[in-house]
Amino acid sequence: MAKSKYEYVKNFEAEDRCLPNCWIVVNLDGKCFQRFAEMHGFEKPNDKRSLELMSRSAAAVMEEIREIVLAYGQSDEYTFVFRKDTTLFNRRTEKILTIVNSLFSAAFVFYWKNFFGFTNMLYPPAFEGHVYLFPSELNLKDYLSWRQAELHANNLYSSAFWAMVLKGKLAPKEAEEKLRPIAYVSHKHEIILKDYGIVYNNEPILFRKGTTLIRKLVPMPGDAKFHQVVFPLCIDLTNEEFWRENSEILGLKPLTVFKPINNPVFPLKRQMNETNGDFSMKGPPKPPPTEISNNSNDKMKPFDRRMSDSNAKNKPEAMGK
Amino acid sequence: MAKSKYEYVKNFEAEDRCLPNCWIVVNLDGKCFQRFAEMHGFEKPNDKRSLELMSRSAAAVMEEIREIVLAYGQSDEYTFVFRKDTTLFNRRTEKILTIVNSLFSAAFVFYWKNFFGFTNMLYPPAFEGHVYLFPSELNLKDYLSWRQAELHANNLYSSAFWAMVLKGKLAPKEAEEKLRPIAYVSHKHEIILKDYGIVYNNEPILFRKGTTLIRKLVPMPGDAKFHQVVFPLCIDLTNEEFWRENSEILGLKPLTVFKPINNPVFPLKRQMNETNGDFSMKGPPKPPPTEISNNSNDKMKPFDRRMSDSNAKNKPEAMGK
Amino acid sequence: MAKSKYEYVKNFEAEDRCLPNCWIVVNLDGKCFQRFAEMHGFEKPNDKRSLELMSRSAAAVMEEIREIVLAYGQSDEYTFVFRKDTTLFNRRTEKILTIVNSLFSAAFVFYWKNFFGFTNMLYPPAFEGHVYLFPSELNLKDYLSWRQAELHANNLYSSAFWAMVLKGKLAPKEAEEKLRPIAYVSHKHEIILKDYGIVYNNEPILFRKGTTLIRKLVPMPGDAKFHQVVFPLCIDLTNEEFWRENSEILGLKPLTVFKPINNPVFPLKRQMNETNGDFSMKGPPKPPPTEISNNSNDKMKPFDRRMSDSNAKNKPEAMGK
Amino acid sequence: MAKSKYEYVKNFEAEDRCLPNCWIVVNLDGKCFQRFAEMHGFEKPNDKRSLELMSRSAAAVMEEIREIVLAYGQSDEYTFVFRKDTTLFNRRTEKILTIVNSLFSAAFVFYWKNFFGFTNMLYPPAFEGHVYLFPSELNLKDYLSWRQAELHANNLYSSAFWAMVLKGKLAPKEAEEKLRPIAYVSHKHEIILKDYGIVYNNEPILFRKGTTLIRKLVPMPGDAKFHQVVFPLCIDLTNEEFWRENSEILGLKPLTVFKPINNPVFPLKRQMNETNGDFSMKGPPKPPPTEISNNSNDKMKPFDRRMSDSNAKNKPEAMGK
Repeated sequence: MAKSKYEYVKNFEAEDRCLPNCWIVVNLDGKCFQRFAEMHGFEKPNDKRSLELMSRSAAAVMEEIREIVLAYGQSDEYTFVFRKDTTLFNRRTEKILTIVNSLFSAAFVFYWKNFFGFTNMLYPPAFEGHVYLFPSELNLKDYLSWRQAELHANNLYSSAFWAMVLKGKLAPKEAEEKLRPIAYVSHKHEIILKDYGIVYNNEPILFRKGTTLIRKLVPMPGDAKFHQVVFPLCIDLTNEEFWRENSEILGLKPLTVFKPINNPVFPLKRQMNETNGDFSMKGPPKPPPTEISNNSNDKMKPFDRRMSDSNAKNKPEAMGK
Repeated sequence: MAKSKYEYVKNFEAEDRCLPNCWIVVNLDGKCFQRFAEMHGFEKPNDKRSLELMSRSAAAVMEEIREIVLAYGQSDEYTFVFRKDTTLFNRRTEKILTIVNSLFSAAFVFYWKNFFGFTNMLYPPAFEGHVYLFPSELNLKDYLSWRQAELHANNLYSSAFWAMVLKGKLAPKEAEEKLRPIAYVSHKHEIILKDYGIVYNNEPILFRKGTTLIRKLVPMPGDAKFHQVVFPLCIDLTNEEFWRENSEILGLKPLTVFKPINNPVFPLKRQMNETNGDFSMKGPPKPPPTEISNNSNDKMKPFDRRMSDSNAKNKPEAMGK
Repeated sequence: MAKSKYEYVKNFEAEDRCLPNCWIVVNLDGKCFQRFAEMHGFEKPNDKRSLELMSRSAAAVMEEIREIVLAYGQSDEYTFVFRKDTTLFNRRTEKILTIVNSLFSAAFVFYWKNFFGFTNMLYPPAFEGHVYLFPSELNLKDYLSWRQAELHANNLYSSAFWAMVLKGKLAPKEAEEKLRPIAYVSHKHEIILKDYGIVYNNEPILFRKGTTLIRKLVPMPGDAKFHQVVFPLCIDLTNEEFWRENSEILGLKPLTVFKPINNPVFPLKRQMNETNGDFSMKGPPKPPPTEISNNSNDKMKPFDRRMSDSNAKNKPEAMGK
Repeated sequence: MAKSKYEYVKNFEAEDRCLPNCWIVVNLDGKCFQRFAEMHGFEKPNDKRSLELMSRSAAAVMEEIREIVLAYGQSDEYTFVFRKDTTLFNRRTEKILTIVNSLFSAAFVFYWKNFFGFTNMLYPPAFEGHVYLFPSELNLKDYLSWRQAELHANNLYSSAFWAMVLKGKLAPKEAEEKLRPIAYVSHKHEIILKDYGIVYNNEPILFRKGTTLIRKLVPMPGDAKFHQVVFPLCIDLTNEEFWRENSEILGLKPLTVFKPINNPVFPLKRQMNETNGDFSMKGPPKPPPTEISNNSNDKMKPFDRRMSDSNAKNKPEAMGK
């Protein structure tokens, strides 16, 4: 049989393992996404539907891969942080990278309708992925702060740009020329915004801070067990209080129970009101997660397909622990 | 501004380039696909809808990335062969790997409805990807022969297994026990098939040989230009005649015009009849590619979103050349 | 000119950088050294000349490459630990690995005569090298403990083996057969040693613990400046007191001044007496480093070519800082 | 025992294998060699002793590692070409790189006296190493042509520079300023040389072409067996005739017998006369290899420690086949 004759080609496969005892970080980034946004009529400068679809897709990845302790998304990119001690796929770089990437890409198309309704997707998008390895908690936090600082800089610029174009009726070229002399990241952008009656800090926190996904335990009513639920937050990742209050995230410790009220770091309700945020799946199979919000005014809605999907019982086992 | 302070983290990114003058091959493989197949009621041992959806998704990748000269798919895997001299993304491994993987995964969900109709997708699937580098044409052909030999071995086994289960009414365990003592790949499987009235060589060639996608030029009626079209073939990849007749594939030469009649290696029509194959998009936006088939009985239908999609004119530029 | 035509081949070079913020460790290991030892009549089970030549060669590496903070040697291997934040050679793996390896190999031949005198070297030896990256201090210390634990296990075994062969007049095969049933590392080996009147803990500490090289500052008499000097120690690397007392080694802090008397962790004098150790160069150009030992009975002799070599003034600049 | 507790650190080792079916090329390059040359009084612009010591050391590497089919050296660098199909050390990059590098460095010190006599080595030199992988014969030949073209360019420049300094009594700065405006590689250099009565093509071929080492079989007198002998040549590597006449080098074929007379490509005798070359070991243990040169005037002297060394019988087995 030909098998043995050809099988030697296996040796031509690249095989790379992530250095142990490092935080494995996978970053996904939309490929030619500006074009994709234009073709599908995304709102300028920020499209809430798109940001929420990104987060829904990222939550789908976290639901599948339990070794991911945190994800952070902004604009057309998302970052996934694995447990420092994960042994998922033997820490093989290609496997970790492609499965996160594939799952996210498939979920983006899968959940599209829930966020874009009758706006049909015209062609499948693509995301490119990269792996970072961080030996220390400081490096990891600096990475996340970097992504959030980029969001700040880009958003300030594009808010000013679109205010000039949409409110000021400037041609895009004119707006660009006026902004160009101003240093890339600058408080001058804020001054421009005020000219158009915009107070930057009043802009939705979702646009200013991006979305941080973390995993918490939630008690199931009528059930002795706790469930893992992915929660979206809009927070400042340079805030050490957040990391202290949720020390299990980087501390390789067991998950903790979600405490919406007593936790000063989780002003989820305010965040959601502010952003009018509703991160949960909007599609057919999804009764409200009443178990964590007795108060119907409470907008906190975790991502949890397992709880809300009618087909959850048929769902294959999640990868990882 | 914080940017400069944090930007050092860029140095923690893995950066790997593919060795020049090697064939870059990306292989994608369904993750936990047996479960996915069961959950969505795939036919046993082969589900034509699934195979065609795989090929449609692979064609979407080839349409986007012009540097791919050939693709080969079987079961839940697909392999993409890049030009030996491609400089796409500076030959950076992660970029090439993740963009192929992402596009395929997104396309799989995007085109699902065209092949599975009212069978809803229950959850987004995932594909893992790997990169191979082949210094010589022989290594590359051996790789492709290996994948096709694997298909042969697996298909012979599963054809026998499912004949015993579905026709012979054996319990799966019984069938497995009867087959186990027989060497993994063996003509004894053929004997078993004959017991159930099955002549293996009469099985659809799509199931026995998998799908090979190649790119050809097709003249546009009323247009002086030729268009690149991706054609699906069911052929034996160990057949040197195929490589000789289509020497532009590995020869780094310009694309050639598709010749359906005079080309003995391209019995596309017969293949299609045999498999009752219809590889083209079945969804809404897709008038038949009349330009290549004057005869309405001709089942040859290439993948070409550019020709058939109503939105083709809005489509962003393909990557690569 | 041909240059431009051929220069593309540069792209075929492997280029790998060490992950930042990790301890870079280079381990060198004698290739076919058992044979080399036999051919040159090394003493069994330990040859002090060879161990000292290894350490002299390692000190030559440390003298050249100031970014190395510690080295540890035993048997025919030596390990070099770089500053966690070194930027030497842009952290390029191949450069760091080969220059350490090359310098050590050349020094081994260069200093041979100083330790082996009239025993001529018959052919040049070879050392193979490997790079390890450690994200945390614990990983690094565990690595060093691992090497020292290996020495302990191997030395216990070979001490027992050679006691049986040399004192007990057993054939090597008989000795091996008696030792084989005993678990690889075991206190039973100590029992065997006692049978031959050997108290393992009375064996020279050099043989039991290997050699640790660290860098200290030493005042030059008649000179306001301090000099960097490499000191050999025979210590237990699992002893946390050592790391605490010399916290500059892993702490990325400035070098500290050598204090022979008040430092309980540096019983250098005793060590040297015990081992009858004399690690310094024995060759022609080497007046005793009187500046650190007023007492002529004091056997402490640092490695410092700069102080002792007559040609030090002509010496090219050391690599690194 | 501590062993198991610490052994996990093995996983922090980088492990890289060379892509199969590629030519593995190791290049060694003197580190800070200009300084080393000055300190040891090398002749300008070329020092024959140094070039021959480099070649002697490279031959030592080839004698040990039979998988090397060719080596090429010029100035302070040497390149080693492995069989395309070598499986030495499982093609592990670090092993191949460091053992070649280590052996060469040790041999350089070991054979120093044979070429530099009473000029003592003041300190051990260091060489850095790099690995290249070439998928095709053309890439490999282009690499070798590149190295030889570099030699040509550098040698033309430095010949002109030193002619101006040594014969023209210009200060080095003046010479540099006169040469700088001339394009790096240029026939103008030849014009300058003629000003000082130097015809570049009459310069020793060793200086103009570097040294190519190949392996041939040589019959042993009074012995039925053939011996592998490393021969030094001064040839033009872009000359296709050389590769054709010695097609076993790249052709993965058995070694061929050395034919000094009938072989037009091997004008070894002329070469040797021209360069007054005498590449063989000059040290004590080395009777002339009479078996290949009946004529005592014949200067051809291969490198072969096995034939000439008195201790050859004790020599450990060579690595590789």
